[in-house]
Amino acid sequence: MSGEEREKEYLLPGERVDRLTIGNYKIIQHPEVFRFSVDAVLLATFPSLHGVKTVLDLGTGTGVIPVILAARHPRLKITGIELQPRLADMARRTVLLNDLAGRIKIVEGDLRQLRHYIKEESFDLVVSNPPYLPLGTSFLNESQEMRIARHEITCTLEDIVQAAATVLKTRGKLAMVYRPERLVDLMWSLRSRRLEPKRLRFVHPRPGRPPVLILLEAVRDARPDLKVEAPLYLRDEEGNYSEEACRLYGIEGQEEKKR
Amino acid sequence: MSGEEREKEYLLPGERVDRLTIGNYKIIQHPEVFRFSVDAVLLATFPSLHGVKTVLDLGTGTGVIPVILAARHPRLKITGIELQPRLADMARRTVLLNDLAGRIKIVEGDLRQLRHYIKEESFDLVVSNPPYLPLGTSFLNESQEMRIARHEITCTLEDIVQAAATVLKTRGKLAMVYRPERLVDLMWSLRSRRLEPKRLRFVHPRPGRPPVLILLEAVRDARPDLKVEAPLYLRDEEGNYSEEACRLYGIEGQEEKKR
Repeated sequence: MSGEEREKEYLLPGERVDRLTIGNYKIIQHPEVFRFSVDAVLLATFPSLHGVKTVLDLGTGTGVIPVILAARHPRLKITGIELQPRLADMARRTVLLNDLAGRIKIVEGDLRQLRHYIKEESFDLVVSNPPYLPLGTSFLNESQEMRIARHEITCTLEDIVQAAATVLKTRGKLAMVYRPERLVDLMWSLRSRRLEPKRLRFVHPRPGRPPVLILLEAVRDARPDLKVEAPLYLRDEEGNYSEEACRLYGIEGQEEKKR
Repeated sequence: MSGEEREKEYLLPGERVDRLTIGNYKIIQHPEVFRFSVDAVLLATFPSLHGVKTVLDLGTGTGVIPVILAARHPRLKITGIELQPRLADMARRTVLLNDLAGRIKIVEGDLRQLRHYIKEESFDLVVSNPPYLPLGTSFLNESQEMRIARHEITCTLEDIVQAAATVLKTRGKLAMVYRPERLVDLMWSLRSRRLEPKRLRFVHPRPGRPPVLILLEAVRDARPDLKVEAPLYLRDEEGNYSEEACRLYGIEGQEEKKR
């Protein structure tokens, strides 16, 4: 059976396979249901993996973050929890398609009831690309799956931070991608749960522009001392992918076309 | 009497007059006692002055922030409070030397007892360039005046934020310059006192380097919504002052020598 024939075995109608340039892994996607964004790729490449063996991805969607993390280090054992059955099912098939079943486990469940699925204080690293948008923001042109992934319908920032605080070991780390407008909410929520922000990086579309995303790493029970890193620019002044974005996306060369 | 002879009337032994390029004002300094830093200039040029009439500078030192603010807008009435008698005295003489006595008032006093000197809820804008360094940091090669200005000896972050919360009107603003390592402390402290962070800018020595300072504006009783601005680079990739630094410092041209 050819590679393409094998891929088709794993697909439902409307779905397709997208190739990650990182590690040559494949992700099952459905253009009208849910597609992962650059946010997920930035988050998956952000946390330091030094000393990390076990990782939990809160709201894993179609499982792109676990797959990139698996590509980053062969030692990692990764669990992804996802509320939405259709996405959890796509994530499971993605794991099988990539022969990663020994390293990635997908749990269909609600992170607000995490104790039902996951042992307390059992993870070295928790990652999450949570919904950013408060309820009441427009839902136009979005699938039900996308709405739940983007808006605070089934889980809020507080739910994510509470869940992370429950399952992280002492000195365990939480890495998140979030919006700059809500940085104060995020820091407040983290410190309230004894997750101390330690690394912060702003992601800008290009030099001279305000940031559109933040990447933040907090450590459980750590002392206050934040390292703010140099900004990450996705494109250079001419509008081409920056060297760093090429490296993170796994793009060879820098001759990408302007958008 | 020439300008220089007039200046000498205002000086004590060891002191000198430095010219601000901003507004052609003069600052009395004593190289071995206390000199203002770039931090003060950055802070004084940061806050929006829209609708602002009354300003209080907490820990004004030799009064450089009030003088720059006076240069920025003729409407402003500015009060500077300073604990250290020698610095308060230099600040008062700086005000007289610049003929700004009608617009700037220097109060010698302790901002921890602000209610003794200042009416509650009476200011539109509070600014502060507070001590950054926790107690226990090395005191090497510093005058007593510089130690108190740089280390949390006579006033902590909490003291500053408490004082600002007391004297600001509703919707009044607090602008501060601070260290990135303590951003979480700062945000936590501000929100605890209902001063909501609304504008944040990082100051980097040059592109590609982590920030060394933060500029932050908080608004009393405002709703959460933080605008993080594009970074401020003090120098460009070649090590020359950046265009923006030249503008802020009031330096003509960009042909400054490399340090």
